Amino acid sequence: MSAPPKYKGKLFLLPCPISEEDFKLVIPEEVVKKAQSFRYFAVEDLKSARRFLRRMDRTFPIDDSTFFILNKKTSVDQLEKMIEPLLNGEDLAIISEAGCPGIADPGAALVDLAHQEEIQIRPLVGPSSILLALMGSGFNGQSFTFHGYLPKERKDRVRAIKDMEFNTLKSEHTNLFMDTPFRNMNVLHDLLNELSDSTMLCIASNITGQNEKIQTKSVVEWREHAYDLGKIPTIFAIGKGQSKKINSKS
Amino acid sequence: MSAPPKYKGKLFLLPCPISEEDFKLVIPEEVVKKAQSFRYFAVEDLKSARRFLRRMDRTFPIDDSTFFILNKKTSVDQLEKMIEPLLNGEDLAIISEAGCPGIADPGAALVDLAHQEEIQIRPLVGPSSILLALMGSGFNGQSFTFHGYLPKERKDRVRAIKDMEFNTLKSEHTNLFMDTPFRNMNVLHDLLNELSDSTMLCIASNITGQNEKIQTKSVVEWREHAYDLGKIPTIFAIGKGQSKKINSKS
Repeated sequence: MSAPPKYKGKLFLLPCPISEEDFKLVIPEEVVKKAQSFRYFAVEDLKSARRFLRRMDRTFPIDDSTFFILNKKTSVDQLEKMIEPLLNGEDLAIISEAGCPGIADPGAALVDLAHQEEIQIRPLVGPSSILLALMGSGFNGQSFTFHGYLPKERKDRVRAIKDMEFNTLKSEHTNLFMDTPFRNMNVLHDLLNELSDSTMLCIASNITGQNEKIQTKSVVEWREHAYDLGKIPTIFAIGKGQSKKINSKS
Repeated sequence: MSAPPKYKGKLFLLPCPISEEDFKLVIPEEVVKKAQSFRYFAVEDLKSARRFLRRMDRTFPIDDSTFFILNKKTSVDQLEKMIEPLLNGEDLAIISEAGCPGIADPGAALVDLAHQEEIQIRPLVGPSSILLALMGSGFNGQSFTFHGYLPKERKDRVRAIKDMEFNTLKSEHTNLFMDTPFRNMNVLHDLLNELSDSTMLCIASNITGQNEKIQTKSVVEWREHAYDLGKIPTIFAIGKGQSKKINSKS
């Protein structure tokens, strides 16, 4: 038996674009360079991960690389297989279908297992629609919650929305959430019908894309200006506009 | 009087590095290019903003640019001055001292005011220690809260920490927070003394820096492995490791 390697590999989290835009707008140059060195990958979707690697480097040696599938169906046995190259001194990168691995996307289970093996974790910089929506909302960024997907049942969804509104009114806290694009118009309908006129709502659609729209308006204004969100990736946020908080005079 | 311009300018949120690392690791190439075109800035700190612009472009025309100061003391009158160039068709970029404007940093009040003037908001991609810590934690990224800075009083801080622990045990929710670096060791002391042995804690320090460390361990393990966090920018998270959630067999 050969001796174990002196060093373990590192587990990288490699973000990828969230829109049709050029990756150079959303992935830093040195991250692109780093990505070209990886030969082991844990990917949410094989086809999109390969396409991303080839977009960054037309000569990327796909055929000399190892791809593991990492999604909701992945078992612990399969995760342990992904840990093996790391224990053998090889770096491995997680790539999700869009955006940052581990944020509303697979990745966390493998990271958790890697921590148990004392493998170094290196998240890399890239686009997160949640973070970009929060930055663009004008809402409180000192205290915020991302709630993930809303409940599917209308009754539960309305309660979730109203709980967020109550929380924001009470505490200045920002509440972000999303849904699968085909349910966006149902969500919007509930927001405009169930929230108070003066509640502030941010709708951030097509983030980083050519038709990016990030707008914050009161619910009563949104009722006049709502637009078609069907099939469009969208982040919603309920919060308080932060210009109200500051002094009127210096 | 001249006619008002056909187009309003856009309000950009321009992230900057959070560590001593090269900006090419954390700011995308096209964002750097875009930054070189701006001549109007709202900055948290004049010196660090100028240094950042010169790091990206040694010939950046600092003297031909206009800088507004945007921090906690900024008044509504001053914010309105920053809106003027936007209304006159000029782009303006917000730069905070480190990381993403508007996320645990100034910016949101100006964004809020810009929304009221129907100015287009364009958040750009860059490093966020909160987001990178969450990605690296192995905790739930479908549902999480950032609580900002902990209360200064020990009694209140302990209650805040225990509330987060209870929330995580109850709901799988991830709870992130930070403190000013000089209080980090007090925070760590309280975490290790007040949380249950089996509670999982992520400590992410020096994110994107040369000595970046992102580690998730149980509180009982941390009691053996705690290290000096004094003066080191650190994000803490209490959460549940996500490998426990998945199937043992495929």
